[in-house]
Amino acid sequence: MIVILREHPDQVQLDGLLSWLKERKIDVHPTVGAHQTILGLIGDTSRIDMDLISALDIVEEVKRVQEPYKNANRKFHPEDTIVRVGDTQIGGDTLTLIAGPCSVETKEQIIGVAKAVKESGATILRGGAFKPRTSPYSFQGLQVEGIRLLLEAKEATGLPICTEIMDANQLPVFEDVDILQVGARNMQNFSLLKELGKTQKPILLKRGMSASYEDLLMSAEYILAGGNPNVILCERGIRTFETYTRNTLDLAAIPVLKTLTHLPILIDPSHATGRSALVPAMAKASVAGGADGVEIEVHNDPAHAWCDGPQSITPAVFDKLVKELQLIRAAC
Amino acid sequence: MIVILREHPDQVQLDGLLSWLKERKIDVHPTVGAHQTILGLIGDTSRIDMDLISALDIVEEVKRVQEPYKNANRKFHPEDTIVRVGDTQIGGDTLTLIAGPCSVETKEQIIGVAKAVKESGATILRGGAFKPRTSPYSFQGLQVEGIRLLLEAKEATGLPICTEIMDANQLPVFEDVDILQVGARNMQNFSLLKELGKTQKPILLKRGMSASYEDLLMSAEYILAGGNPNVILCERGIRTFETYTRNTLDLAAIPVLKTLTHLPILIDPSHATGRSALVPAMAKASVAGGADGVEIEVHNDPAHAWCDGPQSITPAVFDKLVKELQLIRAAC
Amino acid sequence: MIVILREHPDQVQLDGLLSWLKERKIDVHPTVGAHQTILGLIGDTSRIDMDLISALDIVEEVKRVQEPYKNANRKFHPEDTIVRVGDTQIGGDTLTLIAGPCSVETKEQIIGVAKAVKESGATILRGGAFKPRTSPYSFQGLQVEGIRLLLEAKEATGLPICTEIMDANQLPVFEDVDILQVGARNMQNFSLLKELGKTQKPILLKRGMSASYEDLLMSAEYILAGGNPNVILCERGIRTFETYTRNTLDLAAIPVLKTLTHLPILIDPSHATGRSALVPAMAKASVAGGADGVEIEVHNDPAHAWCDGPQSITPAVFDKLVKELQLIRAAC
Amino acid sequence: MIVILREHPDQVQLDGLLSWLKERKIDVHPTVGAHQTILGLIGDTSRIDMDLISALDIVEEVKRVQEPYKNANRKFHPEDTIVRVGDTQIGGDTLTLIAGPCSVETKEQIIGVAKAVKESGATILRGGAFKPRTSPYSFQGLQVEGIRLLLEAKEATGLPICTEIMDANQLPVFEDVDILQVGARNMQNFSLLKELGKTQKPILLKRGMSASYEDLLMSAEYILAGGNPNVILCERGIRTFETYTRNTLDLAAIPVLKTLTHLPILIDPSHATGRSALVPAMAKASVAGGADGVEIEVHNDPAHAWCDGPQSITPAVFDKLVKELQLIRAAC
Repeated sequence: MIVILREHPDQVQLDGLLSWLKERKIDVHPTVGAHQTILGLIGDTSRIDMDLISALDIVEEVKRVQEPYKNANRKFHPEDTIVRVGDTQIGGDTLTLIAGPCSVETKEQIIGVAKAVKESGATILRGGAFKPRTSPYSFQGLQVEGIRLLLEAKEATGLPICTEIMDANQLPVFEDVDILQVGARNMQNFSLLKELGKTQKPILLKRGMSASYEDLLMSAEYILAGGNPNVILCERGIRTFETYTRNTLDLAAIPVLKTLTHLPILIDPSHATGRSALVPAMAKASVAGGADGVEIEVHNDPAHAWCDGPQSITPAVFDKLVKELQLIRAAC
Repeated sequence: MIVILREHPDQVQLDGLLSWLKERKIDVHPTVGAHQTILGLIGDTSRIDMDLISALDIVEEVKRVQEPYKNANRKFHPEDTIVRVGDTQIGGDTLTLIAGPCSVETKEQIIGVAKAVKESGATILRGGAFKPRTSPYSFQGLQVEGIRLLLEAKEATGLPICTEIMDANQLPVFEDVDILQVGARNMQNFSLLKELGKTQKPILLKRGMSASYEDLLMSAEYILAGGNPNVILCERGIRTFETYTRNTLDLAAIPVLKTLTHLPILIDPSHATGRSALVPAMAKASVAGGADGVEIEVHNDPAHAWCDGPQSITPAVFDKLVKELQLIRAAC
Repeated sequence: MIVILREHPDQVQLDGLLSWLKERKIDVHPTVGAHQTILGLIGDTSRIDMDLISALDIVEEVKRVQEPYKNANRKFHPEDTIVRVGDTQIGGDTLTLIAGPCSVETKEQIIGVAKAVKESGATILRGGAFKPRTSPYSFQGLQVEGIRLLLEAKEATGLPICTEIMDANQLPVFEDVDILQVGARNMQNFSLLKELGKTQKPILLKRGMSASYEDLLMSAEYILAGGNPNVILCERGIRTFETYTRNTLDLAAIPVLKTLTHLPILIDPSHATGRSALVPAMAKASVAGGADGVEIEVHNDPAHAWCDGPQSITPAVFDKLVKELQLIRAAC
Repeated sequence: MIVILREHPDQVQLDGLLSWLKERKIDVHPTVGAHQTILGLIGDTSRIDMDLISALDIVEEVKRVQEPYKNANRKFHPEDTIVRVGDTQIGGDTLTLIAGPCSVETKEQIIGVAKAVKESGATILRGGAFKPRTSPYSFQGLQVEGIRLLLEAKEATGLPICTEIMDANQLPVFEDVDILQVGARNMQNFSLLKELGKTQKPILLKRGMSASYEDLLMSAEYILAGGNPNVILCERGIRTFETYTRNTLDLAAIPVLKTLTHLPILIDPSHATGRSALVPAMAKASVAGGADGVEIEVHNDPAHAWCDGPQSITPAVFDKLVKELQLIRAAC
């Protein structure tokens, strides 16, 4: 951490700062220039509240050198994290393929899709039961009944299941769910993150629409710091000025996050683009870019899906896509 | 709502759509061109799920003409909403001045600030008790104890109090709080919004960092549709490429929201800019731009504030600012 | 400037860097930690190419402490710049009111508007002759004929004129134009900026749609460094995810730029919002926020304007607005 | 095009609009609802100025159905455009690999890099001669001498060359250059685009930092409408809130642009990310996503590059990357 002091800092405040830092075992190396003094702070600064220092009258600016996350940081945990889920895993040599409908609708639908995507090579089944919808008048998901149908599909196919949790109060209902997804809108719902940190459930944490890489890693840190090491990151598009696609898929997130953290990285091209025609190209780009896998919406009848139909591909398109993804994975 | 069909639409699907719309009492007026057919939908389309129509094979695009919010819509509720809070109100002829520290720290601090800002003309006291912090290692607020201290300050000064709620489970603790603030990060925490819709508490709903005006109004709609008419909107900066300020304060939100909705609009220049030196200019601009009031962080010792010190102004600066705001309000 | 070195830097490269800096009269103060070494660079670093240092293998990151602009920097030029234009000025105690149509259309139109806005208190006439249009099929302006009509309006009213230049080749045609406007799309047309730096014409430099404050000041620096001190900055909205308004007007630019630079700052609420109904509120906010003036599109027949009609206000609305702006200016 | 009228439109204005549209051979199909009337406009609306219609008092909003570009539109030109460059081509079955240093520095450097990248499989040599730099104090390129050195490298290797043009006045100097690059900052320098439209040179048009897909296609339309069909589009990152990477590479541009236009699409992962370590992953993602090729900065000594060293990869890294790109192309 670097602290840039204002010209002619008050000596009493400066001494106060220096002794406060000393108590926290931080070494301070000053650089005194004609107009400006810079303090170099050496030690474990990840637990130092930058805002406290910025607030001092004598301080012009504080700049971080070290990342503010620790458990999520590859520097302190060089080997890749692999998250075990049922008989499969996320991370390592596995190419994870999470597939299924945006919303669980009926028993026939979810079991039908589950069998189809398993046949094509999907490793995990997804399906929305509790749906975060922008409008209170839109379909909010089958909720508890949706979870029940997902569990039936799990039994029928053996595929682990992944579905979104919106409130920690719902945790009992998610007992047999394999992966709990935290949606983009809840990425900074810190109450929820803290509760998930107390479980050992694999958590699929989606990047918020305006979250920086660091914000995403700090949200992961909430879960990790609570004692749950099973965090999987997921890029699903950020909000920019471009409106042709629903969001702007930021694939540079893959090599960036692979550098900064040891956690596995998945990509969700369906929500990112909002258009099924763009999904195969972006799924292929994700795998070539080094993602640990993709999460894709597949619906046996996209034209009659209860929500987000325009971004779902059919089982036939998914089947063809999986073959291409495996070839690309092999080529990299 | 306008539905643009693809060329040569399947007649069976088209008939299905037309009868589905008829059931919902929507009149359809087709415009048949050489290459394209456009359906004009007339009626109450606010409760129609656009995604369902977009998903059809025969549909190229759906464009809304009417806004998707109803209770929040000025078209259906032309007169301004005024929210009563203790002896004061938000909206109408009142210039609301919410002031107080980012975080409640000690009894002396909060009562000291409360007395000072009341003396200067503040109408409502703010102070953070439950703090949403990006880092799990940052100070998370005094929580229940913070609420208790705010209530002491309310008793000491008579000022109504406003503080942030992060989880519906906390509602009992907020029983005597006058205004419940929903922070930017929770603007689309729909579980929380639904619960707040069941109360009659005034809700100060902050715009999310990547929320459009429509998103904000849809979140307000969740609360209003639940039966709680006491919603106050607050612009607090959106996330853009500019990083000199913490966020980009979007003051056009004032005249835009005044057009679209009847709800009162406040501005928070402290969080928007993140720099105390910019707060007075932006508070003045807000009042001149037609805001119903401002929410400002005031700390009697910003250099030792427990969080967000850099964006707090002192009681002396606030006192001078209030006089200027009143002059500007009178000039408009 | 702060240089953060990688762990175990190569000594030869490091010595090379140190002697290179010494030649440039930069003092280097190292802070050696267990894992990281930080170099504090003291001296005039504004002319040091940061990229050259970043490129070294031994360097992890370079962070600026000093601003990279010099002529535009208030630190080296504390007093406000006032730009003289005909009988009026921009900056200082003057509230500049630039008004006129988006495009010059006919002699009657431009002289009619010029007389009306002068009567209301405008200090400068604006009007587009060379128009940068997104589409090659849109009206591109009357061009040379437009300049001629503006000069007639100047003669008829005595108002100085301001109009956009798109190419340095056009300079001879602009000989009698008082203020040359550089549009947002040309803010980083460095060929044009260099040529304008060779003149002594007042240049109204508009902020690009994705330009940071620093980018804007660096573009001003191109003109100033060329020898032309007459630069006026203008905020006209940045591009964000919000699409209801054409752009997002960033009024925090006013106090920020007033801190960073000595150049005058104008606001263009017409282009920023793209909607005439929002212009008065944003003009008032601009003046209350401390702007040196506003540039407003006024058309005697907005419904038949040749371009950008939706953002033009009528002379009657302008007349009422000027009175309010003067009251607000007095109140601040 | 759809025109949404305000309630109770003035009949005289409406008749005026209808006859104006009739003159332009546009058929109008009205949909009259209880509260709202919608006009469906059928015909060639690409040459209709939307702003003119929006400006009318009787009009609430105008929405395009058809794209405003014609020459660039795949609907009117279904087959892919292939641009011939020397002995190679861009588009079709060719995987274009443009490689070379950010800036041309010395004869040894440019010829050395040219030979190395040709050996690895590059099809075109790039190198900056005229450099658009944010700071007037940064190295501005070798300019005319840089072009001369590029031509020597072309002679030595047979590779066609690609370099940036910043001003139409420079055209004579570019006579023997194979591809003229228009940089992101000049994407809407319409003076330059118009002049390039008068040549037959292949133009590599880079997407501006805040340009939508439509903006990019409209800029291409300027060149195409001028009579030059040889336009190649290039995505090089857009500006968003994320600052870890220099820009946010928007790879969805590939399938989107492939749908909207027939022009070839290249990706520049070097400028997009600004970090050499991210370039290989993003180049692979680009090829898997369906790009016609990539433009990559390669420098034989990135640590001593005169500009943008941090984003250049070495010839050895490039050589390994090309092999991977060819495997991925084959797998798709």
